[in-house]
Amino acid sequence: MSNQISGIAASNGIAIAKVYMLVDPDLSFKEVTITDTNREVERLHDSFNDSKKDLEIIKQHAIKSLGEEEAEVFEAHITILADPELIGAIETKINDEKINAESAVKTVTDMYIGMFEAMTDNTYMQERAGDIRDVTKRVMSHLLGVTLPSPSLIDSTSIVVSHDLTPSDTAQLDRQFVKAFITDIGGRTSHSAIMSRTLEIPAIVGTGDATTLIKDGDMVIVDGNTGDIIIDPSDDEIKHYQAEAAKFAAEQAEWKALKDAKTVSADGKHFDIAANIGTPDDLAGVVDNGGEAIGLFRSEFLYMNSAELPTEDEQFESYKKVAEGMNGKQVVVRTMDIGGDKHLPYLPLPDEMNPFLGYRAIRISLDRQEIFRTQLRALLRASNYGKIAIMFPMIATVNEFKQARAIYDEERQKLIDEGQSVADNIEVGMMMEIPAAVIIADKLAKYADFFSIGTNDLIQYTFAADRGNEHVSYLYQPYNPSLLRLVKQVIDTAHAEGKWAGMCGEMAGDQIAVPILMGLGLDEFSMSATSMLQTRSLMKRLNTEDVKVLAEKALEAESNEEVQKLVENSCK
Amino acid sequence: MSNQISGIAASNGIAIAKVYMLVDPDLSFKEVTITDTNREVERLHDSFNDSKKDLEIIKQHAIKSLGEEEAEVFEAHITILADPELIGAIETKINDEKINAESAVKTVTDMYIGMFEAMTDNTYMQERAGDIRDVTKRVMSHLLGVTLPSPSLIDSTSIVVSHDLTPSDTAQLDRQFVKAFITDIGGRTSHSAIMSRTLEIPAIVGTGDATTLIKDGDMVIVDGNTGDIIIDPSDDEIKHYQAEAAKFAAEQAEWKALKDAKTVSADGKHFDIAANIGTPDDLAGVVDNGGEAIGLFRSEFLYMNSAELPTEDEQFESYKKVAEGMNGKQVVVRTMDIGGDKHLPYLPLPDEMNPFLGYRAIRISLDRQEIFRTQLRALLRASNYGKIAIMFPMIATVNEFKQARAIYDEERQKLIDEGQSVADNIEVGMMMEIPAAVIIADKLAKYADFFSIGTNDLIQYTFAADRGNEHVSYLYQPYNPSLLRLVKQVIDTAHAEGKWAGMCGEMAGDQIAVPILMGLGLDEFSMSATSMLQTRSLMKRLNTEDVKVLAEKALEAESNEEVQKLVENSCK
Repeated sequence: MSNQISGIAASNGIAIAKVYMLVDPDLSFKEVTITDTNREVERLHDSFNDSKKDLEIIKQHAIKSLGEEEAEVFEAHITILADPELIGAIETKINDEKINAESAVKTVTDMYIGMFEAMTDNTYMQERAGDIRDVTKRVMSHLLGVTLPSPSLIDSTSIVVSHDLTPSDTAQLDRQFVKAFITDIGGRTSHSAIMSRTLEIPAIVGTGDATTLIKDGDMVIVDGNTGDIIIDPSDDEIKHYQAEAAKFAAEQAEWKALKDAKTVSADGKHFDIAANIGTPDDLAGVVDNGGEAIGLFRSEFLYMNSAELPTEDEQFESYKKVAEGMNGKQVVVRTMDIGGDKHLPYLPLPDEMNPFLGYRAIRISLDRQEIFRTQLRALLRASNYGKIAIMFPMIATVNEFKQARAIYDEERQKLIDEGQSVADNIEVGMMMEIPAAVIIADKLAKYADFFSIGTNDLIQYTFAADRGNEHVSYLYQPYNPSLLRLVKQVIDTAHAEGKWAGMCGEMAGDQIAVPILMGLGLDEFSMSATSMLQTRSLMKRLNTEDVKVLAEKALEAESNEEVQKLVENSCK
Repeated sequence: MSNQISGIAASNGIAIAKVYMLVDPDLSFKEVTITDTNREVERLHDSFNDSKKDLEIIKQHAIKSLGEEEAEVFEAHITILADPELIGAIETKINDEKINAESAVKTVTDMYIGMFEAMTDNTYMQERAGDIRDVTKRVMSHLLGVTLPSPSLIDSTSIVVSHDLTPSDTAQLDRQFVKAFITDIGGRTSHSAIMSRTLEIPAIVGTGDATTLIKDGDMVIVDGNTGDIIIDPSDDEIKHYQAEAAKFAAEQAEWKALKDAKTVSADGKHFDIAANIGTPDDLAGVVDNGGEAIGLFRSEFLYMNSAELPTEDEQFESYKKVAEGMNGKQVVVRTMDIGGDKHLPYLPLPDEMNPFLGYRAIRISLDRQEIFRTQLRALLRASNYGKIAIMFPMIATVNEFKQARAIYDEERQKLIDEGQSVADNIEVGMMMEIPAAVIIADKLAKYADFFSIGTNDLIQYTFAADRGNEHVSYLYQPYNPSLLRLVKQVIDTAHAEGKWAGMCGEMAGDQIAVPILMGLGLDEFSMSATSMLQTRSLMKRLNTEDVKVLAEKALEAESNEEVQKLVENSCK
């Protein structure tokens, strides 16, 4: 009989296949005194050779999936296995002490690892210690005759089950064979979940105990749309899910066909579908999924992936790369949004009782102006290489926007005075994520060139509920008429001054919210790249007059649930 | 030459007088071998007798200012001094060991204190240890010939200077002699600051080092309106401040004269001026200052001053006392507002990253319904003794209000079914302190009988700025048009449904905000009792047509500062 468990649906799609368990095997052994030392040395050489063969395969996979540079780590592992000093020391140990190969390998490699790790001020040697540890694990698995699983060694259709997936595991997954994955831990925004959406394979994370409930070779069904996992499915279940998978594949094909299409409603009204990105590496996904712009380029990665404040030139290179990559399409860069739950080791922030209501984003930029000015100069210089727009986060008052814009104007003038060229059509706008700003949007629209609604923060402040706090998670209500009225106010006040309004929170790609947002007249919908084509497809089926009526009803509803039902009933 | 320091203006008014330092003197001494033991025993008896005399005076003062019950602690101290066993033990020590009285007193009392304190499960004995410690300090001061200051011993016009003031110090201050006080520590909302406003004497707190900069007997001027302290003032300075004090006294007299007056504008429109209170003890201040209602009775004191959840009967008694004390005038009781920065030792709450955006107030009540139902039953039963109204804090959505009201209706029906009598005109309303609720106030007004705007929280959520965080304190902007527009929305939506709207945050008694709030049509202004008469006086001078025009201008301003200037210019 089939058995069902469930987890967090992290990436859409359906897969049916046998399980490949990506779990470290038991590598424990006993120290044994031996007589036949030649036999042990032979076992040692065999284990080294077998390990070398594994690593050659893994390396070739890695070159294909990750590129030459990233694959070098496996070349380093192969070099360790060819080191005559290492193998010599282990042979001596076997011959002198008459112990089994396992014991000799462990004693010698432990000594090297200990020695390298002791060099605490030498990062290179520290990394070598890690390499030796990895290689030893592989050698030991061959000595013990157990399989050390590796994503690169998967060569038949499989569903990977593991406790967690490291970035390097994920990168080695071959989409030809790996049809889905399941992990014990993680949430919708964990690294593995984000990677699964980028790879476009179904994934279910946070199952708790999938690695103990599922065995290697089990047949399972993964429903990435619902988070359900069926172990040992019946024939009927397989048939049902095959049909579901076919439907999903048809949808996917329909979406892919829209890659180069314009985003228009059934009656021909155009909307912009844009992407939210975190680093220049995300550009490929935007292009592949037919993004018409980048509605939110979070600049935090520059600050988070650095040991000190990034220089103007470092920032310039990143902004330039994205601007060029988008080929004249607009790239909205949000200035530094540090604070709240994002901290930098080199920029100490005050301890705060309520960091989400604290010193963060533009509040830091206006206070620590040297950081802000460096970023603005880098952005201004990059404006020559594409269509850059600048957006300030966490603006609460008209004065804050005016101050930020004045600093921008000063830096712009300085660059021009220095004889540097700067684009002259740079739009300077702001996030709408604080209730105070929305309420006074009519005044802000006189100064800002555009508004972009950040729904994650706007919802949390509007309902006074931390979005990460499970005890108040029922108050995350994107469809609540309170929130929709604020959204309407942002759109209407922007339009009254001839400006545009976008949305770059999760809600912009939410299939329940999209019809209402269209009805409210939102201009730009910015979302994860992988949601863009689905949204374009949805919009194609909707008529602007219908969604206007729908939006009007939603604004007069009483609750989140009521609005959700309205949409579900009208868009069936 | 005079010398000026400053602190936090905690209570209005001006005082000019000599300083009484309420600071513990140095009570250190050396152990000395003596020959004349009779002389030491005599010194001992003198010190006990002098201490008894002090305590008799202090006790008489305490009976007058605090009442018989509270003064009992000093009777206990006198009893200790009369204990033959204690004095006998000290005499024996002097005679046997030939040591001075100071050493003998210390050794014997330390032994008793140690013994009593060791009885950790006996609260009574623990308190006795504290009593002996207090008494010993006084005896020692007489032995050493130094003065141990006490608020009760002040018998001439003085300004008290101390590091901090304990509740019992403050209670013993005799307003006949004590004209002001100054402390090193504390803020506007510290215990001593609140007491100074209740006693209506000027106070400056948080000076940092007043106790080191000022000496006993110094002449000082305290300006409780500005926080300035002038040490050794010149004749001109004294003259200037005497004039200021006279002006202030005239104002005060004018305010007092309004105690029994109705609150009306210059053109005769009536507004309600109500009080915010924390415990039934605050009732006297409300009556003395002519309160027309209690707009906010915080029920937290019942939960905070208790070792476990207060019973229905305990709550009933408190609510009844306040209802009766107000003699038919309305008492709005806010249901439990725990969480955020208010914790109960017996009700563990989850650790939260942003407690102000967390599990608190009505969110707890709807989740832990047994606590909520007990409170509602106590309130319903108390409704027979006056005019009680019930108000729910932290309502964000229509569903929350409907749920809370449904629970109220159930408990009401249960009591009626049990044959208990319940008033039938109880109004059930809500705090307006979360932006989401304000935005959907038109819907909420169909279900709630009234709205009361809680500006402290509403400002912090609207601007996404923790009011206790100094790094974002610039965003505490009560006059910002964003906030004023929300206030207008609450008032207009209430009136559209024939309901009333009040305000019970600090802003309701703010002399800059009051004219605008009148212009917006706010019905009830609820504030600290000591601000009520001043506000009634201000309202008497304002014309409703003028403040309406002022409010309209304020709603269209761009900033907090612009609105402040508008009011200052128009109400000069």
